[in-house]
Amino acid sequence: MYIEKIQSPADIKGLDMNALRTVCDETRAAVLNRVSKHGGHVGPNLGFVEATVALHYVFNAPTDKLVFDVSHQCYPHKVLTGRAAGFLGNVDDMNAISGYSSPAESPVYDNFEVGHTSTSISLATGLQKARDIKGTKENIIAIIGDGSLSGGEAFEGLDEASELGTGIIIVVNDNEMSIAENHGGIYKNLRALRESKGKCEHNWFKAWGFEYKYLEEGNDVEKLIEIFKSVKDTDKPTVVHIHTEKGHGFQPAINDKETWHWGAPFNPETGESLMNFSGEDYQTLFADWMLREMKSDPTLIAVTAGTPTAAGFTLAKRQEAGKQHIDMGIAEEQACAMASGMAKGGLRPVWTVYSTFVQRTYDQIAQDLCINSNPAVINVMWGGSGTMNDITHICLFDIPMLCSIPGLIYLAPTNCEEYFAMLRWAVAQDQKPIAIRVPSNGVIHTSEEMETAFSFESKYKVVHKGQKVAIIAAGSFFQKGENVVRMLAGKGIDATLINPRYLNGVDADTLNSLKADHQLVVTLEDGCKDGGFGERIASFYGTSDVKVLVGGIKKDLYDRFDQQQLLSDNRLLDEQIVEDVLGLIK
Amino acid sequence: MYIEKIQSPADIKGLDMNALRTVCDETRAAVLNRVSKHGGHVGPNLGFVEATVALHYVFNAPTDKLVFDVSHQCYPHKVLTGRAAGFLGNVDDMNAISGYSSPAESPVYDNFEVGHTSTSISLATGLQKARDIKGTKENIIAIIGDGSLSGGEAFEGLDEASELGTGIIIVVNDNEMSIAENHGGIYKNLRALRESKGKCEHNWFKAWGFEYKYLEEGNDVEKLIEIFKSVKDTDKPTVVHIHTEKGHGFQPAINDKETWHWGAPFNPETGESLMNFSGEDYQTLFADWMLREMKSDPTLIAVTAGTPTAAGFTLAKRQEAGKQHIDMGIAEEQACAMASGMAKGGLRPVWTVYSTFVQRTYDQIAQDLCINSNPAVINVMWGGSGTMNDITHICLFDIPMLCSIPGLIYLAPTNCEEYFAMLRWAVAQDQKPIAIRVPSNGVIHTSEEMETAFSFESKYKVVHKGQKVAIIAAGSFFQKGENVVRMLAGKGIDATLINPRYLNGVDADTLNSLKADHQLVVTLEDGCKDGGFGERIASFYGTSDVKVLVGGIKKDLYDRFDQQQLLSDNRLLDEQIVEDVLGLIK
Repeated sequence: MYIEKIQSPADIKGLDMNALRTVCDETRAAVLNRVSKHGGHVGPNLGFVEATVALHYVFNAPTDKLVFDVSHQCYPHKVLTGRAAGFLGNVDDMNAISGYSSPAESPVYDNFEVGHTSTSISLATGLQKARDIKGTKENIIAIIGDGSLSGGEAFEGLDEASELGTGIIIVVNDNEMSIAENHGGIYKNLRALRESKGKCEHNWFKAWGFEYKYLEEGNDVEKLIEIFKSVKDTDKPTVVHIHTEKGHGFQPAINDKETWHWGAPFNPETGESLMNFSGEDYQTLFADWMLREMKSDPTLIAVTAGTPTAAGFTLAKRQEAGKQHIDMGIAEEQACAMASGMAKGGLRPVWTVYSTFVQRTYDQIAQDLCINSNPAVINVMWGGSGTMNDITHICLFDIPMLCSIPGLIYLAPTNCEEYFAMLRWAVAQDQKPIAIRVPSNGVIHTSEEMETAFSFESKYKVVHKGQKVAIIAAGSFFQKGENVVRMLAGKGIDATLINPRYLNGVDADTLNSLKADHQLVVTLEDGCKDGGFGERIASFYGTSDVKVLVGGIKKDLYDRFDQQQLLSDNRLLDEQIVEDVLGLIK
Repeated sequence: MYIEKIQSPADIKGLDMNALRTVCDETRAAVLNRVSKHGGHVGPNLGFVEATVALHYVFNAPTDKLVFDVSHQCYPHKVLTGRAAGFLGNVDDMNAISGYSSPAESPVYDNFEVGHTSTSISLATGLQKARDIKGTKENIIAIIGDGSLSGGEAFEGLDEASELGTGIIIVVNDNEMSIAENHGGIYKNLRALRESKGKCEHNWFKAWGFEYKYLEEGNDVEKLIEIFKSVKDTDKPTVVHIHTEKGHGFQPAINDKETWHWGAPFNPETGESLMNFSGEDYQTLFADWMLREMKSDPTLIAVTAGTPTAAGFTLAKRQEAGKQHIDMGIAEEQACAMASGMAKGGLRPVWTVYSTFVQRTYDQIAQDLCINSNPAVINVMWGGSGTMNDITHICLFDIPMLCSIPGLIYLAPTNCEEYFAMLRWAVAQDQKPIAIRVPSNGVIHTSEEMETAFSFESKYKVVHKGQKVAIIAAGSFFQKGENVVRMLAGKGIDATLINPRYLNGVDADTLNSLKADHQLVVTLEDGCKDGGFGERIASFYGTSDVKVLVGGIKKDLYDRFDQQQLLSDNRLLDEQIVEDVLGLIK
């Protein structure tokens, strides 16, 4: 076996073509071994095995710089740069290696921590400028998938790479897919380029002034080596467009590219998932609710920026929705601005976006949407500590961000029935943009009667009126609030429990009413506390006698954290909160 | 005079070509009248007079929808849609009409509040989708300048307009300029298209699948009418590329297009400015400091995203800086990500950006820059209540935004010497991304000895140690803190004065030390208080006996506010703060 012995790319330089093909096979098997046992990105990595071997054969990392986009195709690169154990070893070995490009893990071979899309060219232009200023000669190679090209940052990067005019190699890894199918006009040109083998009439890249090369056989290591050799040490901005197969070498991933973009552990023989999830989830509930409503309301539109399954819109459901489902490609700015335009035009758009990606469109939420007060709905998925946990995919910052944008209402439902009541109201009203933080602590039901009308002013709901201590527990932390109140009752304290429902502003009436018979207010939010929900309440009570304990997660960079440990570190376990309350009251 | 009588575009429909030319002349004179007396965008509006008359002649607003980009070219549109008084009348009439597209002002003719760049196509695709769903037939027309094409959102919008495949007309108003000269590879193609009269080999727009028409004579109303007629009611995504002259009809603006992009009141005969500003400004001081430092440090790079004069880099200074000045075009995401890449590559980039535009790149600051901890510097200009005041250009939100991004240090110097000490330290260190909020309350000097070394931990500076009351006054509000302390001294209260210097996190040691002999802490920040600096201090003291009065501006949508009124409404006038302090202490 070669790859167990490969410590650096230098170790493949002397190999002949047969040996390189074996390295490819072994690398693919190693990738499959990891993803089948550990989960991870499947299709993107399998399709980029040969290109990675060829890149490392032709170029000289770390002198030459490889910059990955999203970096969900960097597993083969990790195998070849001293991290094969993370693909061949035991679970601890695998856990030690992240799923993304990471200088923390390999300062020599990984140039950037990357996880969001469309960034590689922009980052690479910085290295290009640095090289040009320093007068050195290394190759700068940005790798970007066709799906990532739909993001505005990728465009801005291309624009600058062309402007700089010096050597940069942009490898467009065209597997004809984003996470789902591609959406966007650019894909018409990529298709024309593929079908004409790079020779169609109007070449988008050449229009921009790039040197351009096309390779149809993007999974043929020999041809890849040839084309990379032909551009090595170029002094011009150059695009190498390679046609690869997503999931190459693993039939289940080829047959169903969307499902196999990312996956939980599976049987490598059959592709059968080893995770049995049979409960309810908000994605499916949301999509089914939307599909039902769409039948009676042709103006209801489900919007996504390249992540339709974040909203439960599987291929079949997208087809069922027809023109009432729209996917912008990976283009959150467009999704937000277009949703504003659709709402202005009389439609009822609901844009579903993961917490970690909503931050890609701060300005459009503020400018295109909120200043215009158009009634689009933003459905924020997975906000909280119990969802994604890679450093690039942290879902803790949506509350501070969205709550600092004037004109936006941010609702935090605490269970399934409240969520759909809020969603129904948000879609029906025609005055304001409304964001909803979908609960991320599982689907919890209630038989309680739900209010059907909400307001544009923050109105908290007092769930239980006690005294001395009040717990204001927002969204996914509401059940934690219930637990704390129950535990305090066991200590003889009849604490008030409040479901604030609104994150974007305080309910002064309710807060003022607590002053009479409460000495401590505890706020609980499942997110970053710096700039968040609870601090506003601390500020509200700042000049009063009411003390405030703000419960949330300290602002910091977190990577692959354990949720319970994180909560414990921030004194957010139920028993810690009770202990702190007892220590604070007189 | 025609334009005094034009109440709606219908009033120009019956005019013959001579009369239309007169309408153009009168409209241009009206625009010049306003900008010379009131200030505003000069060149962009003058260049778009004929196109606006032609658009309103050919299309039927408000049924047909015009969507402007930046909307700094919408003055002629305002003249023709019932708002001529804002161009011909007295100062009050002019003040009543904003400088941007505004549905608040004209719900019938203005579709969106717009002020940031690159948004028109995205917004228009929303109207396009709404039309298609509703099955109506109106024309959707997005207007975008060549400069705005460099922004990622414009690209995402083009991508979607092409994808939708139905009728939309995108008017590319190509005046060969951004605010300054254009930067970006796309401009190579625009030039090739202009030089070939739209017939060059690789057409960027056609590559994208657009129908494409070119008009060289973009200031000829007759030819404009002809080309717009030819695309009216199209059912295809269509680009009409018109070559206009920025500043057309006013020689000073033609001669110096950058200076005349936007201007203060001037003599309309000579172009001589009526504003005499002879004091110091941070733009000039910054550029001159950079130019001096660049001579000894070839790795120091001044970065801008299309607004070089925000950093004092006039054309002459850009030329002096040479390769050490880089302009990305209007592409803040690229500016931030590339700065991260440059820092990674060993350069020392300093990106200068207005507070209102830094929000265009939240994700890149968080992901490309801060997660990677690359030592780029972000120089934030004009943050505060005393700078821009249009609803789209509010500079109050940079503190909540930047302070919710983990890994970023945000410094708030209080005077000129402290600013340059911080800048020097930020550029010299190689560990962390540092943002600096340049003071926006004028250039204030001190003869005090400055510290030269700062830290990555927040360390407040106790300027005066008193008791009972502490004033923590950040950045541009530090002098307000000095005033308050002085006024309190007159009331017999010896208040502590603190310059916090760091906005991104609290200095627990200093705050804890106040607990012994202070009962009230007042925080002062020149920005939105919701999610801002002071609330974190309120949260810190939430469970202690120290009371906190958070002084800042309430989160809200503000438009053309008066600074003193805004401060007064938020109880931020010096005497109000003193009054509130006296009311709170025992």
